[in-house]
Amino acid sequence: MRTLIAQTVEKVGEEVTIKGWVHVRRDHGKIIFLDVRDRSGVMQVVVLPQVSEEAYNVASEVKSEYVVEISGKVNARPEKLINPKLVTGTVELEAHGITILAKAAPLPFDMGDSELNLELPTMLDHRGLTLRHPRVQAIFKVQAVVIDAFREFLKSQEFFEFQAPCITPAVAEGGSEVFQIEYFDHKAYLTQSPQLYKQIVMSAFERVFSVNKIFRAEPSVTTRHLTEVVSLDAEMGFIESWTEVRDMAAATVRYILKQVGEKCAKELELFQTTLPVMLDETPTMSLREAQQKIFDHSGRDVRDEKDLNPEDERELCAIVKEETGSDFVFVYGYPTKKKPFYVYPNPEDPEYNEGMDLLCRGIEWLSGGRRVNDYDQLLEQVKEWKMDPAKISMFLEAFSYGVPPEGGFAFGAERITMQILQLKNIREASMFPRDMERIDIRLNEVKQ
Amino acid sequence: MRTLIAQTVEKVGEEVTIKGWVHVRRDHGKIIFLDVRDRSGVMQVVVLPQVSEEAYNVASEVKSEYVVEISGKVNARPEKLINPKLVTGTVELEAHGITILAKAAPLPFDMGDSELNLELPTMLDHRGLTLRHPRVQAIFKVQAVVIDAFREFLKSQEFFEFQAPCITPAVAEGGSEVFQIEYFDHKAYLTQSPQLYKQIVMSAFERVFSVNKIFRAEPSVTTRHLTEVVSLDAEMGFIESWTEVRDMAAATVRYILKQVGEKCAKELELFQTTLPVMLDETPTMSLREAQQKIFDHSGRDVRDEKDLNPEDERELCAIVKEETGSDFVFVYGYPTKKKPFYVYPNPEDPEYNEGMDLLCRGIEWLSGGRRVNDYDQLLEQVKEWKMDPAKISMFLEAFSYGVPPEGGFAFGAERITMQILQLKNIREASMFPRDMERIDIRLNEVKQ
Repeated sequence: MRTLIAQTVEKVGEEVTIKGWVHVRRDHGKIIFLDVRDRSGVMQVVVLPQVSEEAYNVASEVKSEYVVEISGKVNARPEKLINPKLVTGTVELEAHGITILAKAAPLPFDMGDSELNLELPTMLDHRGLTLRHPRVQAIFKVQAVVIDAFREFLKSQEFFEFQAPCITPAVAEGGSEVFQIEYFDHKAYLTQSPQLYKQIVMSAFERVFSVNKIFRAEPSVTTRHLTEVVSLDAEMGFIESWTEVRDMAAATVRYILKQVGEKCAKELELFQTTLPVMLDETPTMSLREAQQKIFDHSGRDVRDEKDLNPEDERELCAIVKEETGSDFVFVYGYPTKKKPFYVYPNPEDPEYNEGMDLLCRGIEWLSGGRRVNDYDQLLEQVKEWKMDPAKISMFLEAFSYGVPPEGGFAFGAERITMQILQLKNIREASMFPRDMERIDIRLNEVKQ
Repeated sequence: MRTLIAQTVEKVGEEVTIKGWVHVRRDHGKIIFLDVRDRSGVMQVVVLPQVSEEAYNVASEVKSEYVVEISGKVNARPEKLINPKLVTGTVELEAHGITILAKAAPLPFDMGDSELNLELPTMLDHRGLTLRHPRVQAIFKVQAVVIDAFREFLKSQEFFEFQAPCITPAVAEGGSEVFQIEYFDHKAYLTQSPQLYKQIVMSAFERVFSVNKIFRAEPSVTTRHLTEVVSLDAEMGFIESWTEVRDMAAATVRYILKQVGEKCAKELELFQTTLPVMLDETPTMSLREAQQKIFDHSGRDVRDEKDLNPEDERELCAIVKEETGSDFVFVYGYPTKKKPFYVYPNPEDPEYNEGMDLLCRGIEWLSGGRRVNDYDQLLEQVKEWKMDPAKISMFLEAFSYGVPPEGGFAFGAERITMQILQLKNIREASMFPRDMERIDIRLNEVKQ
């Protein structure tokens, strides 16, 4: 019967059997220490020849990442040897028997340190190994909590989860950044967004969300772009105003932060970061108000720009933080013509729309807004945007049969993981990051 | 303040406002009945000119699928007019005011009936509309419960959810049924299975699962194949025997059935189906035992075959049902060389492996088994299977660094939805089914 390592703290004095990987071996002549790792944590195993000659001989052989089964007695550590950094820091295992379940090749770098000081390309070249490092695992634990929290919260709000497709028949908007698939005798494409699908499904289920892959053939290598990401998408019908979408988005982010705070305290500490502050009401301003604020603050005049650039976003967030204490700010009201055809123009000022972005610590976290739901208005915008109605015929048909006022929002799981942990590169927030230069292996090294 | 339709049964005598779609309008001269549908259900609205002339005039105008806001008084129905088929069958709404929120074009077919008697191609040609039908929605409610239950159960067993990639750098096994992507200056492919990725991630997290898209370029149109499906995958380390994988798979299916039974009673009734019977211990037999059973039962001799064909599967399930009452049966021990390189050969009889299938009602529900975890054995099998190690280098590297005995299983969300509801065609179990002939629209009608 296997005992998980984290459970040993409650079994002082008992005989147990643990199974796991040798994280580190420290050889002190007449005593060998093994740090053994399983999914629940790491514990120190003490191997003494006078306790078991046989165990000692096996321990002399094992190396990092060997898979072992160790039986022995759980001992409380003397007060001064307690290690507060380990979940199991109050105990250690006195080895009575060790069995090697699998051997490991010599490691290309040290994996036993609490940091993993590797260049990112090296980290990714050896993903099958580096995924075992507790610091790397922490990133994906946070990401799993983010995705679960998104799902949990929206389900609590009666949103229905649907499976959006990855393969699409046509490129609805702009074709330069889309991947083409050889689809039997036809061309097909990888989806850039479940946007139109979630609007269709919303028109049947009212409140829907999806957790799905999207793809962007971004022809450049930056620290913020991947070609394949997990998109968290929500859409809701029967709204009275775009502010209901904003409030639902804010509540979703609040819930995610709460869950990460509760479940990932250890992980946040590992990355020496704290969660951003979200007030009960997140400051909200129009693009023009935001630009005016920047001008008033620093004299930098961006009042004629069509959007905020990264510098504007940083400055705005800094101003809002100073004025209100909030790390978050909603900006709405972008120039209608600069945004997709489905974004709802403000009826009182149709040059600007009811699209919105949520910024935090200088970076966009989430986008959304109200959509055009009236079929005639939609057809008009399709024409103005010079789109081919045939390419979005299923979407248009759904809207021809009656769709209530509606809106939604979306964000990327990798992006938000990166922001929460303040990682420098989004590739760290993807287990198997894909970009122009890499799909697991470096593409320039592939023989085709 | 909107009241959801299902909530009206608790508001008899109160003034409420509902919002939804006109499901059916019945015009009886001096009285108009509207069946109005929202995400919570359908309710009858009574519109009388003597109550509100204005509401009556609007009601005369509305047609099926118009989006409306209706305020009025919730009345209890007289005993003999109670409709047991409706959640709201004990009440009706007396309309005081009706507002049209969105109009709808005339429908191409009747959507008001409880059945939706359409040929499947027509159903799919109008997916944006047919998704609104309660019978169609029932399918995806069951599917959402299946996927949630899979996730919930595995999380309760300490499995960690990870995001498997869709884009892969190379085709590891057989290339005929894979979709090729133009990936910048390279070729890439859509994943056929997260198999190798889940094994890699298992080697770091021990117990993992994923809910992810897989793609098969199946060059034929059958009732059981789609090109894009949702794969439910699990993998677990530190097993003692393949039977632990079997037991985890059975427990997962049991939990899914339990959840569907509890949460989808209405949906099962709609499809006039009952859940299959799973005993506490699911009958398990080797392929050879299964073949012998068929021979003993009907004299049909398939004892030299390498696998069960559909007829064998049906016969075997019938025999097992008769003998034990179980709708499920595990078959293990397939010829080693007929299965992928990673399946674990039985050490006592290496011609046969420790792969398994779970059959139910004559059809495969799930596949899995123990995997080869020893690196040297894996290398040998890679060689014997004539695979290119360079194409699975990340996988092989992970296994070179120590992996415990392990196994896992997988099944398709659409397939299991189809089986539970006993649908005739898997396309019904996919919101946006993709096959050789269709991606939303019929491909032969696309201008390229």
